[in-house]
Amino acid sequence: MNLILLHSDDFIADSRVWLRGRRLEHVVSTHRAAIGDQLRVGKLGGLIGTGKVLALDREKLELEIHLDRQPPPPLPITLLLALPRPKMLKRVLQAVASLGVKQIYLINSYRVEKSFWGSPLLQTEKLQEQLLLGLEQARDTILPQIYLRQRFKPFVEDELPQLTAGTAAYVAHPPAASACPFGSNRPTTLAIGPEGGFIPYEVEKLQDCDFTPVSLGERILRVETAVPVLLSRLSDNCGKP
Amino acid sequence: MNLILLHSDDFIADSRVWLRGRRLEHVVSTHRAAIGDQLRVGKLGGLIGTGKVLALDREKLELEIHLDRQPPPPLPITLLLALPRPKMLKRVLQAVASLGVKQIYLINSYRVEKSFWGSPLLQTEKLQEQLLLGLEQARDTILPQIYLRQRFKPFVEDELPQLTAGTAAYVAHPPAASACPFGSNRPTTLAIGPEGGFIPYEVEKLQDCDFTPVSLGERILRVETAVPVLLSRLSDNCGKP
Repeated sequence: MNLILLHSDDFIADSRVWLRGRRLEHVVSTHRAAIGDQLRVGKLGGLIGTGKVLALDREKLELEIHLDRQPPPPLPITLLLALPRPKMLKRVLQAVASLGVKQIYLINSYRVEKSFWGSPLLQTEKLQEQLLLGLEQARDTILPQIYLRQRFKPFVEDELPQLTAGTAAYVAHPPAASACPFGSNRPTTLAIGPEGGFIPYEVEKLQDCDFTPVSLGERILRVETAVPVLLSRLSDNCGKP
Repeated sequence: MNLILLHSDDFIADSRVWLRGRRLEHVVSTHRAAIGDQLRVGKLGGLIGTGKVLALDREKLELEIHLDRQPPPPLPITLLLALPRPKMLKRVLQAVASLGVKQIYLINSYRVEKSFWGSPLLQTEKLQEQLLLGLEQARDTILPQIYLRQRFKPFVEDELPQLTAGTAAYVAHPPAASACPFGSNRPTTLAIGPEGGFIPYEVEKLQDCDFTPVSLGERILRVETAVPVLLSRLSDNCGKP
């Protein structure tokens, strides 16, 4: 937790918050904060800044907050990700949120196990939990939007053309002849398949929507490795301190 | 397991192997292989190719192997990694091996918890297990070398200058003024600190060894995300299919 995220119902006045539970615990056990200390805070959906510890006991933490800066810029990449197994999904969502992706479509694919769609992790608040962990890690405040699309064909045919309009669209496909390009920071749509990859029919459907298949070379990477590798390669704002 | 790794004691003749245990199980339950099927195989430290199933029962798998291709090229990057917590170390080692790093130094840093150095995971065969999983994933056969360096100062002063000679050396350091460059595939040494980063003294010691501090921007990433992001950014052979 490199940033304490403040929710609107934490506010007891314009610049005062009370925190309890997980955030209080973290400030006590990890920051070992004392009265007068300044902590990094950000308002969910808003600015980032500092919170001065006014009071701290076992019950609650009171901060006087001063928000004066924009959160880091988002990645201009919309991610379509074949639903990974729940355990991996948790880690991937945290990573994706920390890297600044703001639009995530979890989609079906032939090689996605049907049971994954029944995971309790797909409940809105559970997904959000993982995304919040990613924001806290990266000191960001803008919650990504996440969409579940359990039927591949209607999604690709009815929704995808609008989504990709005006963007460069790539599908990660190990046998592809083109190498994944280095980023230019232009709006991009990136599709990443399941372990084992998209099947040829799915790649063709994506190509019909102007996706270019791109490869990362001979090495087959796990989804959790491929995601940061591809996002890092396709974007360049990661290089601007 | 995208490649079945063969060890020298699997060979019962020049081009025949017997496999048991984990690899047999995987071939039965995941590949659902039958007699006559061709499987991807590679000899640890050597060539890759195919193995034709000659016999298969509950006890063992017999393959006739034909090895004719080089494994994928290595990443010309030596990685110095402040020892992460054991659970994360497992995943990071698998990812690093799958990405093709061949020289890994696990080093100490002020913010590395002392207890991590006592983890049973640091036994040679346990470390190797994780690396083998990474190789099987990426269809590689060349086992990375891994070195444990529990004392920062003697490592940096006595060993590092020779290691970095002739390489571009970078230390990932979020407050750095320079952006992490895009890769040129030249030999590189990359140092990545613990959660919370290297302390200023450590960054200075690395700078004395000609390391350039580089940043990935405002976002603070978890080590397991920063590692693939940095390796992807610093190398370009990932783009050659």
